[in-house]
Amino acid sequence: MRAASRNPDTVVLLSGGLDSATTLYHVLAEGRRPAGLTFDYGQRHDRELRSARAIARRAGIPLYLVRFTVPWRAGVLLNMDAPLPSGRRRKAGVPATYVPARNLVFLSFAVSLAESIGAREVCYGANQVDYSGYPDCRVPFVRAFARAAAAGTVAGTAGRKIKIRAPLIRLSKEQIVRRAIRLGVPLELTWSCYAGGLRPCGVCDSCRFRAAGFRSAGIADPGVR
Amino acid sequence: MRAASRNPDTVVLLSGGLDSATTLYHVLAEGRRPAGLTFDYGQRHDRELRSARAIARRAGIPLYLVRFTVPWRAGVLLNMDAPLPSGRRRKAGVPATYVPARNLVFLSFAVSLAESIGAREVCYGANQVDYSGYPDCRVPFVRAFARAAAAGTVAGTAGRKIKIRAPLIRLSKEQIVRRAIRLGVPLELTWSCYAGGLRPCGVCDSCRFRAAGFRSAGIADPGVR
Repeated sequence: MRAASRNPDTVVLLSGGLDSATTLYHVLAEGRRPAGLTFDYGQRHDRELRSARAIARRAGIPLYLVRFTVPWRAGVLLNMDAPLPSGRRRKAGVPATYVPARNLVFLSFAVSLAESIGAREVCYGANQVDYSGYPDCRVPFVRAFARAAAAGTVAGTAGRKIKIRAPLIRLSKEQIVRRAIRLGVPLELTWSCYAGGLRPCGVCDSCRFRAAGFRSAGIADPGVR
Repeated sequence: MRAASRNPDTVVLLSGGLDSATTLYHVLAEGRRPAGLTFDYGQRHDRELRSARAIARRAGIPLYLVRFTVPWRAGVLLNMDAPLPSGRRRKAGVPATYVPARNLVFLSFAVSLAESIGAREVCYGANQVDYSGYPDCRVPFVRAFARAAAAGTVAGTAGRKIKIRAPLIRLSKEQIVRRAIRLGVPLELTWSCYAGGLRPCGVCDSCRFRAAGFRSAGIADPGVR
């Protein structure tokens, strides 16, 4: 049994990608004691789960894993047959990788975990600059969700509201890369590619945003070898 | 492939209990085309899953099942060793059967399903009269959650907001029993008891609320044999 003072005070959604790893190190730099939360929901590949585990281990934080299966079509990331979107074929609007209400589901589990372990804060790596096609990565959603979490939990209604934060939400990908470098994020352990495989595909939207971020920052991506 | 006009327009959380079954029949009586959504999350027993299936079959609606596992203590309903609360031992405040943020998680999945199948409404059997200890069964939560769902989904931000409704929220258990009878709810298929077993235990809070509702309504409970 750990001493109470060592218990996590923050839950961080940790997908294994650049944004969530940077969020974790941002929270660590604030002097908080985060726990990670990651999901196995039948993604295309388990490469990002392995990244989440490696990052948690490196950061020395506990990592919680929620497994779930949904019997409905939930976007191309769960559909092995659908082609992955890449910039060349991309149409305006919502990307095909959108999973209906995914951050709503992820954050709800995070609030459940936070309430269970007595953490007062939930953080996730939403970023509305590059991914403005995803409504659940924008400020209005973060605010509305925070109010729902406060109204729907014992902690929230008892005046011990669980705060919902997305510290990277207004940063560009270049700014996230710079912040990651400054915070000492183990970039070589992160995985952003929508596809699996030994190396990032380099053509999916996530790979392209990441590459553009590193290019703008003038830094070589240690995650691409 | 069904014709578009036959597609479900409403998602109903269907636990297999009295309140959720009455919510389903309420929605059917409104002329809507509901789909049910139920959860296997390692409950104490699968008796309520069997009830949910039987009720969906009787009502002639599709039933979606989400399975999930969480690695944290999530209230006595997931903890096989903890004693179930009964009125005699009950303390004021939040019941020990409270699962942190459970309706937040359930409704988030329901919104994901609704968005996937194009349904415009999510209904659940929350009832704040008898279960006022649960914050996620009260009107302020329903309203706050509806705003989060609208802000966090493509449907919501595109002006096709998914409505969140809890049609029984202001009814007493007696009123719910009367409404269930009037709507022709197959009460003999419903299961409210927190424990498993062949027959309801009769002493847990859920059994006691149900019994009190039938007693006040002056009706014999066909689910207790």
